[in-house]
Amino acid sequence: MVKKELTNRKLFDEFYSNKLSDGKEVDLQGRVRTNRNNGSIGFIEFNDGTFFKNIQLVYENNEYSKIRYGSTIEVKGNIKLTPNNKQPFEITVKEINLLNDCAEDYPLQKKRHSFEFLREIAHLRSRANTFYAVFRVRNVLTYAIHKYFQERNFVYVHTPLITSNDAEGAGQVFKVVADMKKPDDFFKANASLTVSGQLHVEAFALTYRDVYTFGPAFRAEQSNTTRHASEFWMIEPEMAFCDLEDNMNVIESFLKYIIKYVLDNAKEEMNFFDTMIEKGVIKKLEHVIHSEFKRMTYTEAIEILKKAKENGHHFEFNDIHWGMDLQSEHERYLTEEVIKGPLFLIDYPKEIKAFYMKQNADGKTVAACDLLVPYVGELIGGSQREEKYDVLLYKMQEIGNDKGLEWYLDLRKYGGCIHSGFGLGFDRLLMYITGISNIRDVQPYPRTPGSLKF
Amino acid sequence: MVKKELTNRKLFDEFYSNKLSDGKEVDLQGRVRTNRNNGSIGFIEFNDGTFFKNIQLVYENNEYSKIRYGSTIEVKGNIKLTPNNKQPFEITVKEINLLNDCAEDYPLQKKRHSFEFLREIAHLRSRANTFYAVFRVRNVLTYAIHKYFQERNFVYVHTPLITSNDAEGAGQVFKVVADMKKPDDFFKANASLTVSGQLHVEAFALTYRDVYTFGPAFRAEQSNTTRHASEFWMIEPEMAFCDLEDNMNVIESFLKYIIKYVLDNAKEEMNFFDTMIEKGVIKKLEHVIHSEFKRMTYTEAIEILKKAKENGHHFEFNDIHWGMDLQSEHERYLTEEVIKGPLFLIDYPKEIKAFYMKQNADGKTVAACDLLVPYVGELIGGSQREEKYDVLLYKMQEIGNDKGLEWYLDLRKYGGCIHSGFGLGFDRLLMYITGISNIRDVQPYPRTPGSLKF
Repeated sequence: MVKKELTNRKLFDEFYSNKLSDGKEVDLQGRVRTNRNNGSIGFIEFNDGTFFKNIQLVYENNEYSKIRYGSTIEVKGNIKLTPNNKQPFEITVKEINLLNDCAEDYPLQKKRHSFEFLREIAHLRSRANTFYAVFRVRNVLTYAIHKYFQERNFVYVHTPLITSNDAEGAGQVFKVVADMKKPDDFFKANASLTVSGQLHVEAFALTYRDVYTFGPAFRAEQSNTTRHASEFWMIEPEMAFCDLEDNMNVIESFLKYIIKYVLDNAKEEMNFFDTMIEKGVIKKLEHVIHSEFKRMTYTEAIEILKKAKENGHHFEFNDIHWGMDLQSEHERYLTEEVIKGPLFLIDYPKEIKAFYMKQNADGKTVAACDLLVPYVGELIGGSQREEKYDVLLYKMQEIGNDKGLEWYLDLRKYGGCIHSGFGLGFDRLLMYITGISNIRDVQPYPRTPGSLKF
Repeated sequence: MVKKELTNRKLFDEFYSNKLSDGKEVDLQGRVRTNRNNGSIGFIEFNDGTFFKNIQLVYENNEYSKIRYGSTIEVKGNIKLTPNNKQPFEITVKEINLLNDCAEDYPLQKKRHSFEFLREIAHLRSRANTFYAVFRVRNVLTYAIHKYFQERNFVYVHTPLITSNDAEGAGQVFKVVADMKKPDDFFKANASLTVSGQLHVEAFALTYRDVYTFGPAFRAEQSNTTRHASEFWMIEPEMAFCDLEDNMNVIESFLKYIIKYVLDNAKEEMNFFDTMIEKGVIKKLEHVIHSEFKRMTYTEAIEILKKAKENGHHFEFNDIHWGMDLQSEHERYLTEEVIKGPLFLIDYPKEIKAFYMKQNADGKTVAACDLLVPYVGELIGGSQREEKYDVLLYKMQEIGNDKGLEWYLDLRKYGGCIHSGFGLGFDRLLMYITGISNIRDVQPYPRTPGSLKF
């Protein structure tokens, strides 16, 4: 046995609950973040991976000054409370055992590296402060999402990744083949990687009422932007007996819950982002938690944008008209300038939204809701689903998407109901919460066009 | 708004905590499971998807007898406590509104269907009792796994699904291509679907100490067995400063925790499996919870198997010798006949185990541990990882697996440490817990050779 029960996190937990006693004996394993000495006394910044903050080791044995940055060590010593210092406690070293030396050509040097460089060493970059914080928040956010749904009796469904159809009926998909010479041979069908689990999870909403999927999705687009990755994670809840208004209530409650959970459970990391990555990010998120999310129809939004243009506001996409797809600048104008907070835009023209969305009585719009937030624009997209068999069939035939989806139509035929759901990209949500501006820097091993190292 | 706060589950929760009052007014939405009447009085078995047990609706209005099995309804009425009946309470109907009729050709008839038939209607089968129970337990088990790790400060890592290498260096993989005519063009590399996230997650264990991945994995094998699927979910924890013995301690604690969690949180479903699917499954699982997991070396196991053969025990694979790969019948003999409980087999010949496993001092075996359980054989496989750079490099070169994995070797060069981990197939674990004997019946939409409906 080599595993120790004591960790940096436990020491900090003890300290914050006033239970850490001066002189406490400790035995820890972890990594050397820095090692410096002034001749008579040495200092190691030590981190064992369990907590964001380092612990300072203070040693007198000059031998330890040879231990290289990046090495792993076991340290035995005693806690020394230091209430007047920046660090509330340190460890007075009795003994350090070098477990594994770090080679001198360690690419992660003490200097500040560019994010571009760090992407090239994805296997090491989580040891650098920013990524150390990012991937822990990624974990905390994931658990917040599961907790929210599980506490409300939603059933988590693993929708398939290999599929013979795609939800949007658009966009480029990756093909999956066992043998390049006989591409359809393995499954006896055209197999591709999913772009969304929504259609598959809808069937389960009609059994369990409230369900969600949370898993990977893929896009084979040649988009080299800061917001596109070829592989990413999606959250897609679906609720039976739930209309558009109910849906928006859940989205609002969900988003506030998960943001609050991260602020409460990743304090050190969020403070780091607030200082080093996006000044004010905590205030931005607290504002969301304390806002009442406003609601506005697409038609109203177009009128407001037209008026803004008349009054001299400059938009890059200047041809404001009913039926247009809103650009990020329009969304941001509405949420930042008009509402100054989160905003649901609802009732979009049916032509610019997906076939499965519920057609409104006006015959022109669908019961969609996009949540817009300041600094980003659209964060979450949702809709009530078309529950009428005939209407849905007609729309599917119109776009030639009815073959292979008979089972999806069945859900309207055998005891359907009003149901709604929403979807959001997990990685973009994480960007929003951490302030990190490139999707490549919130994914453990990002996959983008031309990039498949690791 | 159409969403109601009250659900079947809440009513049962109230009942079990003695808070459900006779006469309570209720308003529920859900599905008709059966509808029968004797002329003057009618009975609907009603389920809204939130709880395994149905609630009986009792009506007098003969109009309601026309409501078809499978339809969705809204029901208003009053609770009637029925302490002397099989069902502890029922609902006296005031009003039923038909929300959506179920067509007469509903494939899910009241008679018992074969599992084979139900696989053909995967979009509807979760409404049938067995699958209704299976997919809820799937959800409960998933959450148990996350809870176990999160409560112990493990960091969940989303390892990539599209990859340029594979952990086992063996087995057939699915290729991922954006354009069939230019297969390597999108990523500028040979892209395939992952068979394991282990190598990728090891890098994060060296940062965060304790980590895990829990996501989909793929095998392009033409195996049409009850235990093989082309797409499945895997759990792969990895721990730094952790040797083989620590690893086994975690496996034992983990397995006991998640089984107990399911027994405690899916009581009705587990009782159903115990009655209808595998008699004694609860006792089997409770035995695991209360067992102390034994440990035995592979070498000892071979001796025992040889002796069993000498004493006349019949094995299909009869050529028992050191170096052989144990078959399921051997594993089951050891765990069922010899130990009569869970058993770790350790220290396997290096030739039959993966390259990344820690070589023991004897030069012949590796620090692997396979957990064998009665009725299944191997349930979980783990090992200490080779932390010595030179030894690992040699083994990788030996099997020609050193190209493209330089980053994996780096983890031994830049402050490595003793570390260990394990892996288990989530779907097979679910089969073990529910007693369901075909992997196609525990996955929402199973993917197997020749099968890609939905």
